Amino acid sequence: MTVQEIGPRSGVAFRLGKGQVLRVIDPQGVQVSDMLAYNADDVREAISNGRTFDYEETIALTAGNRLWSNRSNPMLTIVEDTVGRHDFLLTPCSEATFRHFYPEHPVHRGCFGNLAEALAPYGVEPDMIPCAFNLFMNVPVEPNGKLRVDPPLSRPGDYLRMRAEMDLIVGLTACSAYASNGGSFKPIHFAIEDGATTTTDP
Amino acid sequence: MTVQEIGPRSGVAFRLGKGQVLRVIDPQGVQVSDMLAYNADDVREAISNGRTFDYEETIALTAGNRLWSNRSNPMLTIVEDTVGRHDFLLTPCSEATFRHFYPEHPVHRGCFGNLAEALAPYGVEPDMIPCAFNLFMNVPVEPNGKLRVDPPLSRPGDYLRMRAEMDLIVGLTACSAYASNGGSFKPIHFAIEDGATTTTDP
Repeated sequence: MTVQEIGPRSGVAFRLGKGQVLRVIDPQGVQVSDMLAYNADDVREAISNGRTFDYEETIALTAGNRLWSNRSNPMLTIVEDTVGRHDFLLTPCSEATFRHFYPEHPVHRGCFGNLAEALAPYGVEPDMIPCAFNLFMNVPVEPNGKLRVDPPLSRPGDYLRMRAEMDLIVGLTACSAYASNGGSFKPIHFAIEDGATTTTDP
Repeated sequence: MTVQEIGPRSGVAFRLGKGQVLRVIDPQGVQVSDMLAYNADDVREAISNGRTFDYEETIALTAGNRLWSNRSNPMLTIVEDTVGRHDFLLTPCSEATFRHFYPEHPVHRGCFGNLAEALAPYGVEPDMIPCAFNLFMNVPVEPNGKLRVDPPLSRPGDYLRMRAEMDLIVGLTACSAYASNGGSFKPIHFAIEDGATTTTDP
C-alpha cells in the first residue's frame, strides 16, 4: 500500500476503480479532507448529499453507510471509520467563503479552487462541484437547527476506508479553511488498496 | 395578485424577476412543495443547500434567511413564513425513490420528473437538478443524526413569501410522495407579487 501525501491547502484528483478501497488518513490529527466523486464514465453523475441523506436516513455517516449519486446509485461504501464524525452539509471553502468568514485573512481559493483545478482534466467544470463529503469535519447541529464548525475529533493516524461501488473519479483535498481544522493547515495522506481479499486455496 | 394552482403530483416552471416576491401557499394544509431556482441568465448557477447552510449557519430556514447559489450569490430572501418548518436536506422524490421507499405502490416520476419536464425548456438538464428547498416539508433531525419524514406542520392557507435577489427561473411542485404529505396528494397555490412597495409622496 503506497501512501501519498496531499500538501497543506492543496488537492488532487485520481481514478478509483470499482472494488478498490480508498483509505484517507489524517496523519497529524485535527485536519479536514473534502472529497468529491464522479462516475468515471460520465462525470455528470456526481456525489449527492441529499440523495445520501434520503437513502441512508441520517446525516451522521460512518461505517456501513453508502454515499449516493444524484442518479440514485451507490458510489462508495464506508467500510471502516476510526473517527465517526464527518460532515456532508457544507460546501467546499472557496474565495467567496474566505471573503465572508475570514475578512481579516488573505483570500485563498480554498478546497473549491483546488478541486476545480484537479478535476478540470476529467471534464468537471466548477459549476459541477456539489457539496463535498467532508472527512473528519465536525459540524454539530443544535436542536434549533443552528450549525457550528468545531475542530475535528480525529487524532494522528485516524482514517476512513471507502470501497468504490462504480468506477470513479475522486477529488480530495487537505482543507484550507481556518475554522474546519482549528486554524492550522496540515497535510492529508491517502492510499488506494486493491479491494480483492487475499485468499489461500486450502 | 393572481393565484395559480399546481395540480396534485405535478410541477411548473416560470420566470421570477429580481425584486418580485413569490408567495407559495398550502391551500389545504399538510402538503409539500419542492422548489428549485436557477439564474435566468445562466442556469448553471443553481440553488445550493450546502452554500445556504454555510452562509446562514443553520439548517432551519425561515423568515430573514436567504437561499444561496452554488456561486455564492443570494437568490431568494424569505420575507414571511407562517409555518417555520421546511426542509433543505432531501432531494426531490423520483422514480428511484418510489422504488426504494414505496415498493408496494406504483412507481411515479415524482417531483424530480415533474421538475425535469417543467425546467427542460429553460435548458436545465436532469443532472442539473440539485437538492430542492422543500417548502412545508417536516424532516426532524434527531440528536444522533437520524432523519424522519413527518407530516408537514402547515395548516390550510399557510404560506411562505420569498423575494428574488436576481432574475430567476423557478421550478415548483405539488409533492408526489406518500411520506412527505401524510399520504394524500393535494394541490399547491402560488402567486407572483410585484415587489415594489407602494409609497405615497408626502
